[in-house]
Amino acid sequence: MKFKTKNIDITSMAFKNVVLLNKKDTDKLGIKAHDRLLLKHKDKEISAIVDVTQTFLEPGFIGLYKNVYDKLDVPENTEITVSLTKAPDSITYIQEKMASKLPYTKKQINSILRDIYDRNLSAIEIAVYLMTQEYIPLSSEEIEYLTRGMAELGQILDWDETIYTKHSIGGVPGNKVSLLIVPIVASTGLLIPKISTRAITSPAGTADTMEIFSDIEFNAEEIKEMALKTCGTICWGGKLDLSPADSIISSVESMLNLDPDSQIIASILSKQLALGVNKMVLDLPQGLYTKVKTIKDARKFSHRFIEIADRIGIRLECGITYGGQPVGYNIGPALEAREALETLMGHGPNSLIEKSVELAGILLELGCKAERGNGYRVAEKILKTGKALEKFREIIEIQGGSKNIKPEDIEIGELTHDYCAYDDGYVKDISNLLINKIARTLGCPKFKGAGIKLFVKEGHKVSKGQPLMKLYAQKEENLTNALEIIEKNDPAIYIESMLLDRIGRE
Amino acid sequence: MKFKTKNIDITSMAFKNVVLLNKKDTDKLGIKAHDRLLLKHKDKEISAIVDVTQTFLEPGFIGLYKNVYDKLDVPENTEITVSLTKAPDSITYIQEKMASKLPYTKKQINSILRDIYDRNLSAIEIAVYLMTQEYIPLSSEEIEYLTRGMAELGQILDWDETIYTKHSIGGVPGNKVSLLIVPIVASTGLLIPKISTRAITSPAGTADTMEIFSDIEFNAEEIKEMALKTCGTICWGGKLDLSPADSIISSVESMLNLDPDSQIIASILSKQLALGVNKMVLDLPQGLYTKVKTIKDARKFSHRFIEIADRIGIRLECGITYGGQPVGYNIGPALEAREALETLMGHGPNSLIEKSVELAGILLELGCKAERGNGYRVAEKILKTGKALEKFREIIEIQGGSKNIKPEDIEIGELTHDYCAYDDGYVKDISNLLINKIARTLGCPKFKGAGIKLFVKEGHKVSKGQPLMKLYAQKEENLTNALEIIEKNDPAIYIESMLLDRIGRE
Repeated sequence: MKFKTKNIDITSMAFKNVVLLNKKDTDKLGIKAHDRLLLKHKDKEISAIVDVTQTFLEPGFIGLYKNVYDKLDVPENTEITVSLTKAPDSITYIQEKMASKLPYTKKQINSILRDIYDRNLSAIEIAVYLMTQEYIPLSSEEIEYLTRGMAELGQILDWDETIYTKHSIGGVPGNKVSLLIVPIVASTGLLIPKISTRAITSPAGTADTMEIFSDIEFNAEEIKEMALKTCGTICWGGKLDLSPADSIISSVESMLNLDPDSQIIASILSKQLALGVNKMVLDLPQGLYTKVKTIKDARKFSHRFIEIADRIGIRLECGITYGGQPVGYNIGPALEAREALETLMGHGPNSLIEKSVELAGILLELGCKAERGNGYRVAEKILKTGKALEKFREIIEIQGGSKNIKPEDIEIGELTHDYCAYDDGYVKDISNLLINKIARTLGCPKFKGAGIKLFVKEGHKVSKGQPLMKLYAQKEENLTNALEIIEKNDPAIYIESMLLDRIGRE
Repeated sequence: MKFKTKNIDITSMAFKNVVLLNKKDTDKLGIKAHDRLLLKHKDKEISAIVDVTQTFLEPGFIGLYKNVYDKLDVPENTEITVSLTKAPDSITYIQEKMASKLPYTKKQINSILRDIYDRNLSAIEIAVYLMTQEYIPLSSEEIEYLTRGMAELGQILDWDETIYTKHSIGGVPGNKVSLLIVPIVASTGLLIPKISTRAITSPAGTADTMEIFSDIEFNAEEIKEMALKTCGTICWGGKLDLSPADSIISSVESMLNLDPDSQIIASILSKQLALGVNKMVLDLPQGLYTKVKTIKDARKFSHRFIEIADRIGIRLECGITYGGQPVGYNIGPALEAREALETLMGHGPNSLIEKSVELAGILLELGCKAERGNGYRVAEKILKTGKALEKFREIIEIQGGSKNIKPEDIEIGELTHDYCAYDDGYVKDISNLLINKIARTLGCPKFKGAGIKLFVKEGHKVSKGQPLMKLYAQKEENLTNALEIIEKNDPAIYIESMLLDRIGRE
């Protein structure tokens, strides 16, 4: 059939392309919810599902939502050919997997990924794909196909040198270690063009924090050019088109609150594969609110990661780290940037120094810049002698920032509130989950100056009324909302007295 | 925050309520895809997810899609309060079930059902709910809660008499048995107010076929009044609000091509519970393309059904029937109506008579109108003596149709095509799946006169060129498309010669 196009500036959250038709047309054609239409214009084809209107569009017209008119590239009021089309084969593959529990073939995995990327699958279909992985774990071979397939959908960088990187599976607030690890490693001459993300659910991604110091948005050529000069860069990956199906899959995962192991592995490794990484260290924080809850889980997950990395030619070592409470004392982009810079300048907290030096040390060993077992000491020396600071300033400069920046130059939120101990006792627990939530509510990562400075760590002795943490905000409303969250929930910092119970006559 | 409303006549296919905001507002509020907004106006509250526009709506306005403005009942340009809200508890219950595999509590199931009904869950969340059931089968207790919970969401009918019914899990084309069973049973004085569906994926639902004879859309009071006069009625359930969450759940199931046993049981039994049924017979056609592929599956499924029925106070017997090929020779509303009427008049095909009489016989035994083991004979007699025909005409009349209708009064499609045997041999297989597809393409159930008349059944001997089936359509286009499907696929009617292979010199 022929329909005349009309552009509608609506971005639908359905993941699948959506178009609008008049109810008279859908009735005439017998179109039901989630039937697929094939739109053709010149050499372009797009498949879409249908929203329905009775008055908003005349019969004979087809409303193209933003994703669709951007991609189909057709002027308004153009006659295009529209036909009913069947669901793509990849849906059959997913359904067959559910029924038979047999492994996917390489061709099937590539076809599923391609259809996700082309928006041929709706959110609900991607959900089924992910749920199936949760219940029928993929084989190593399937994860290899998945990893390669995801990488091959996007840009692949090509270097003539050995490329190093560090990555974390996340879940711990205050984890600014990349800002220390990259300069430590780069200062030895190893190439570490670190690609970071912005925060999705955490208060500050490495990219958000690095943005305090310099630009972070560069294309692949620029990153390559900079890295070949300084050995290290810390940039945002958002414009690089590395493993581009991943962001669609991640959005569905976050809606489902679901994170199948196989998809985490493929997501992380596909990006490193596309970036051209040869050797990497993976930080696996273990704790109640991270992906790996126990040391046993962490070990199992590490072996799985290493096996898949081997298959795709990446030499990987995992560092299982303590993820039970925030790293360092500062949470939020500006506060974390300050703490990272102070630490590079020689006066930072132990937890941050130790974690950074441990992970950097593994990379130095992998790159033969330190003997096996000696990486920690070499990395520590690089940090203590100021070489890492020097390299960090070099990185800031090449990325367009001011190399002479001092910690006090970094602006933090002017609205503050001290949260004080409600009792005498010992800090028994600091909830990563609540710290994240409070920091988000304070405005992180959008308002760079928002965040939390902790004054205590687990095990510290505290007296009633003593400040436990300071909240920073840029807007009154954010501070009010954060205080409300603190009031409504269990304490974010839990204090227990030595006397656990008292039994006797009243 | 306050927003001014604007009505937008779009019906979104997302199941969840959807509203539209300007990108400036979503950026300011930090709203991400599938974050939930709570809309308040007077005493009404609605939760919705957000689509985004840059130009279509000014900042400060909120676009209400059709479902939302219908329910919120707020005039345009009214200021309403909008706030970010968290996901409902029922999502936590589903996620906990996934993680712990522990049974749902009654409260949890009711809360999930309520949220599906209120459109608080999106399609993707309903999908997760269903996938979880597929992988972590529900206990009998959970299915009981589900059945009761679904019934209690809608209208519940109350009778002072014992109510009988017959239901089929479907999957077989040409299954017009209800048009025979209801009059047979009603003629003995048992109350059988049969509520039928329209076709969803099959060529003709019982409601579509009955509509050839009379009205089928009545409210509960009307059905009750009629049934108390005639003992039997055959009406459509669409306007009765029986188990109203079911249609939302079914839509997601059909998108997923997924049908967890527990949901089938709850779906069928909740409607009967709401209708006030006390005794019923369930038709379980067994065949390659039905829900139960083997006799073993059918037996297992029957026991499950009976157990849940017992728990909710319904006396249920299952009839496992042969579902390998169509019932009778006619497929499509008008053709099936003709065949049913002819059979009631004394000259119908054996398969249709046998199946109807067997199932009706079970009901007669349950209602003590026949001794155990003698139901078949009693039912057969009612059919053969014309009593069932007389009762059927009475039902037609009370439902507003013409009681003197003759088979030849029923109009069938004027465009026809004979599909002939491509070889000598025996009919080895008639594919229900292809027969359904061809009949749908011919225009069923929308065009009542469209359909298929079969001339053969499995095992029949045929000669090359002999007509195997006649296709009926009302529109040229439908006939062309159907012929195209026949050409592209394996034969719908598969012929095999006695000589299976011939080996020798050429």
